[in-house]
Amino acid sequence: MASGNEEEKKEQSTSKTRILIAVSHSSIKGYPHASISSDTAFHWVLDKLVKPTSSSIGHRREDFELSILHIQVPDEDGPDDDLDSVYESASDFHSMKERELTRGLHLLEHFVRICDDAKIPCKAWIKAGDPKELICKEAAKLQPDMLVLGSRGLKTMQRMFVGTVSLYCTTHATCPVLVIKRKPQDTPDDPMDD
Amino acid sequence: MASGNEEEKKEQSTSKTRILIAVSHSSIKGYPHASISSDTAFHWVLDKLVKPTSSSIGHRREDFELSILHIQVPDEDGPDDDLDSVYESASDFHSMKERELTRGLHLLEHFVRICDDAKIPCKAWIKAGDPKELICKEAAKLQPDMLVLGSRGLKTMQRMFVGTVSLYCTTHATCPVLVIKRKPQDTPDDPMDD
Repeated sequence: MASGNEEEKKEQSTSKTRILIAVSHSSIKGYPHASISSDTAFHWVLDKLVKPTSSSIGHRREDFELSILHIQVPDEDGPDDDLDSVYESASDFHSMKERELTRGLHLLEHFVRICDDAKIPCKAWIKAGDPKELICKEAAKLQPDMLVLGSRGLKTMQRMFVGTVSLYCTTHATCPVLVIKRKPQDTPDDPMDD
Repeated sequence: MASGNEEEKKEQSTSKTRILIAVSHSSIKGYPHASISSDTAFHWVLDKLVKPTSSSIGHRREDFELSILHIQVPDEDGPDDDLDSVYESASDFHSMKERELTRGLHLLEHFVRICDDAKIPCKAWIKAGDPKELICKEAAKLQPDMLVLGSRGLKTMQRMFVGTVSLYCTTHATCPVLVIKRKPQDTPDDPMDD
């Protein structure tokens, strides 16, 4: 049986607005860093929702809880890094996986550090597989109040070739989905990049 | 030149999170009332974003500004109401338009009244035409921080026949777009209804 304090804690916890945000690596050289659209979406959430803007300084961050999810895909940054590698044994593959995990952890560290500095409660984790399916699966498991996704804002023809995670999740996730496009001035030379 | 006070006011105003929410009539008999997905989306915004949940009671509502948009489409509730009508003169068409406008105003009144009761600043207006195009056009004009849309959450095959306003706006609007599906238990007998 829950004590009075625990009941109170539970009540307090469910009244928070729980946000799940999916983040990804940049496909542009100069790794490690977050993709433009992930960074745009993350900072939008902080600036427009979590951080205080009125006289209630310091209060709104208590009302939100951030979950940061990174889906690791083997070729997310292109296979260039490993093109010249020779895999001679199982341990070579093991170290490749270790490198990928380290990259993922660096990415999460980037976002968790920002939350820590701003004193925003957060948790972060990595899953490996197909981003669009895993994001929906994790959202179904976590049942956040809102799923936030950055988007490259590709045009119709571009979308036909690459598909988009954000449109898939908007139709398939059961929770509310917020799609945030990167700003036009942030679009890299190749808009497929991010 | 703006005075110090005006500058301060401008700064205060731009620091608010400005939300544009598009609302529609219900297609289910028993008019006038709001569609299930509009009501779901509207109350989500109030409960999860605008209304205070922590100790900062009364503060968060100062941080948000709601704009409520209704797009009037001539046959949005089906042509049944007018099937038995005989149009004998231009004035008959005029009174039909007047009736439609009155219905639209009743819809907006429903939402504005809720904002008033909760002391949330809001404004509301009606446009007539194609919903998906006009919502994007108004969003481009207003440049809100976020566009909020309710959605029926139709399955792939259903979407093929009716298309969806929310997917169009998610890809075409330049501002962040939040799509909120109605709850499964709120789905009417015919899921195309809303």
